[in-house]
Parts: sequence; structure tokens; C-alpha cells
Amino acid sequence: MANQSSPKTELQTPLREAERIDDLQIGGYRIIQNRHKFCFGIDAVLLSDFARVRRGENVLDIGTGTGVIPILLAAKTEGRHFTGLEIQEESVEMAGRSVALNGLGEKIDILKGDIRNAKELFPNESFDVIVSNPPYMAAGHGLKNESPEMAIAKHEILCRFTDIAGESARMLKESGRLYLIHRPFRLAEVMVALCAVHLEPKKLRFVQPYADREPNMVLIEAIKGAKPRVTVEKPLIIYQGKNVYTQEIIDIYGGNL
Amino acid sequence: MANQSSPKTELQTPLREAERIDDLQIGGYRIIQNRHKFCFGIDAVLLSDFARVRRGENVLDIGTGTGVIPILLAAKTEGRHFTGLEIQEESVEMAGRSVALNGLGEKIDILKGDIRNAKELFPNESFDVIVSNPPYMAAGHGLKNESPEMAIAKHEILCRFTDIAGESARMLKESGRLYLIHRPFRLAEVMVALCAVHLEPKKLRFVQPYADREPNMVLIEAIKGAKPRVTVEKPLIIYQGKNVYTQEIIDIYGGNL
Repeated sequence: MANQSSPKTELQTPLREAERIDDLQIGGYRIIQNRHKFCFGIDAVLLSDFARVRRGENVLDIGTGTGVIPILLAAKTEGRHFTGLEIQEESVEMAGRSVALNGLGEKIDILKGDIRNAKELFPNESFDVIVSNPPYMAAGHGLKNESPEMAIAKHEILCRFTDIAGESARMLKESGRLYLIHRPFRLAEVMVALCAVHLEPKKLRFVQPYADREPNMVLIEAIKGAKPRVTVEKPLIIYQGKNVYTQEIIDIYGGNL
Repeated sequence: MANQSSPKTELQTPLREAERIDDLQIGGYRIIQNRHKFCFGIDAVLLSDFARVRRGENVLDIGTGTGVIPILLAAKTEGRHFTGLEIQEESVEMAGRSVALNGLGEKIDILKGDIRNAKELFPNESFDVIVSNPPYMAAGHGLKNESPEMAIAKHEILCRFTDIAGESARMLKESGRLYLIHRPFRLAEVMVALCAVHLEPKKLRFVQPYADREPNMVLIEAIKGAKPRVTVEKPLIIYQGKNVYTQEIIDIYGGNL
């Protein structure tokens, strides 16, 4: 297992076929990705920026994939410990090597597991914060010509959103926070699923490619056991003109765009 | 009753104390308002523009107040008939005089009634379209120094949103449409209440004072029995600069701003 190998060995031969190392542009951290598989996108970066993690908090990322979210959160926040849960063996192994590559083995655990069986891994009320960039698409919707790995990352094949909501409600401490990014077209289902398990949506932020376009992503903060009242924040705009990022996006990427 | 008086008499003495006649800037239509009571705002104008009413359709406005929404919809659409339901006697009477003033007595009925007893007034599946600009505030929230009339229009004193959702689901035909304007901070509750009665949110449009401000209103289309999938449209922006309306707002107001 990755965290049993010595960091030195990992640093010398971290890459397998079709893998590459990308610079995360923050704190010198890097990540291993496989160019034929699911690579992290702007979604993960925006979610890591949106999530509030306070000093000493214990954080779970459901469906961590490459492990990019725990690594970014370890870089950007004073959280005590980060766990990435991932169902796909190959991603677990690769994310583990990214953690080792960055010398973050004490702060981040990458675990293989199924959110539907999370009870076997994590007791009730064991996290202050949960984050997730879940599969956006319903199971049977528009599945074609994708590798099984891509399909599992993008479609609700191995878990539905209601699984994520239900287990998050169980694993969060009272007043704990869940941070999500999802597609606006799923908004009603997501809100209903959250409210059904008393994860009250408290903050929404829509992400628009331009100021005058419809949003294509939505960031959501839900708080366990909170009273109903949502703040819909001003939209997060990606481009201020053709190929020109807004200052907010440049800031989120640490000035490296 | 207003629609038993002759139009001529109405036109000669339409106003009571503290009342004024405002031009609706469309089709020459006018409306009577009482300057000490609840006057319609931009909310009603935006909702009337957002609602799609097709030729021959039968429309109900829940909580019609001054009657402005049925009058605007009668002016802007080819709907067959419009009913405004209102619980406050004085508003019913005044809205009836506005209908008569505009010679719309054949197209619009203003009825006094309580949405919670709507079964006694309207059978199941009797409307193609329902619109409502409901009280935004929860019953006990921030109630102070308001007249009873204002309080009833703004707070959920005589009906809760779940009453509107439940009765709308009953009164709409299959695939019938509900159009609402509400406050973003109530969004989660509104979505949950709609989904609970199979009024599926299909379209959301947030209204922002400026492109870089958070929204203060949200327009919602829900369709009875539809499949889950929401389109979140581009935001509707009110001002493009200080005291300068956007072209879209000018167009909604018929170029008369």
C-alpha cells in the first residue's frame, strides 16, 4: 500500500503508464493524474475554495478520485485531518501516491470504500465537515462510449445522491457542514434529498461562465440541524471576456492563471 | 358588487379616500391602489412577464391583492379567462373596481376566498395555469408596526406556502403550470413543498439588482407531474448602472421606464 512504501521510493518512481504530474499552483503541491481516466476539473478547485474548514476540524471527501480536494484543503486550511473515500481501486492507489508525493501522509488518508457501507468505516458524528464533488448524472442518463472508470465518476452508478446525503447526515456532528458542487439541473432533487435528512441548505452559489449566461454549476453549503434559511450569494463568474478570467477566478487559482 | 354596477358609474366615481389610479403602461390599462395599503411592486410585473399563458388557457392568481396580475396577463396574453382569489374584503372590492375600470369584466373575475378552503370554490383540475406572488415572510418573522392589511400581504398569517402548493397541485390540470415569485432565502422550503405535491420545479430565474450582487427575488415555474430537471436561467438584472435600468427591464415595462 502506498503509505507503507517509503516516501523516497514514491518520489523516485511515482508514475505509471499514461500518468502525469500536475502542479496544483499552491504551496508547491502536485497531483498525479492518468490522462486516459478522470482528471480533476475546475469543479474540484471551486469546491475546495467554497468549503470553509476551520482550525482543528476533521474532514471527509466522499468520492475523492485523484485526491485533489483533500490535498487542496490541506494546503489552504488549518483542518486537522482529511480523509478521502474512493470506491475505485486504481484511483485509491494513485491518490495515495499523490499524498505521499506531497509528504502529506500524516494529514491525509485515502481509503477504499463504498459510501453505501460507510457505517463499517466511520462511526456516527465523526466529521466536522464533509465535502463531495459527486457524480452529476442520473444512472442511465446519456451513458455512452465511456470507460467504466469515467462512467462511475460521472454517473450515479455506484451511489445515488440520496446515499451521499443520508450517510453525510449520519457522519456529521451536530451543526457540521456539508459542501457540494452539483449541476443546477439537479437542484430540486438535491435540495429535497438534503432537507429529508435535516441537512439544511444554508448557502448556494451559482457558477456562470459569463455574467449574462445561465449557470452550469452550483456550490451548496448545508448544515446539519440548522433552521431553514438559504443565502443565495452573488454568482461566481468564470470569464469577464473571451479567454479572460475574472479576478475572482484568478484569485481562487492563486494568481496562476 | 362592482360587476353589478354599470361601467359608466364606476368610471365616474371609481376612487375612495387615499386611492389613486396608476397607468399600467400596457394596452392603456389602469389600476386603482390605496396609498396607505399594499401597492403592487416590481415583483408582480416580473411575475406577469415570466408566466407563460397560452391561447385559451384558464388562469388563477392566488392572493391577487390589487388585481394587477390578472389585468397584466389579460393585457399581455391570449388566455381565455383569469380569476383573482383574494382573502381581504377591501382588496377584493378595489380590484373589482379596477377590472370594471378597464372594461375587463368578461375576462377577469375577482373572488373573495381563503386558499385553505379553495375546494369550495374550485373543483380539482380546473386551471391550466396558476400564478402567485405569495406572502414572503414566515408568520412570526419581523412583524412590527404594520397595518393588518400589509401584514397579511407580506407574512404567512392567513396561509402558509404549503397551503398554496397543496391547493395548486389539486386545482391544476395534469401538466399544468404554477408560476411563483418568492425570496431566495425561502428557496429550499419552497422546492421541498413543491416536490412533496408533485409540482416539479422546472425553471428558476434569480433576480439581481446588479450583475455583481446577490439575488433578492426568484421566479419559479413548476409543472404538475413533470420529471425532475430544473433549468436555472441566466439572472434577470434590474440595473446596469446607478439608476439605469437594463434593456430587459425596460422591455418588460413596455419601454415606459
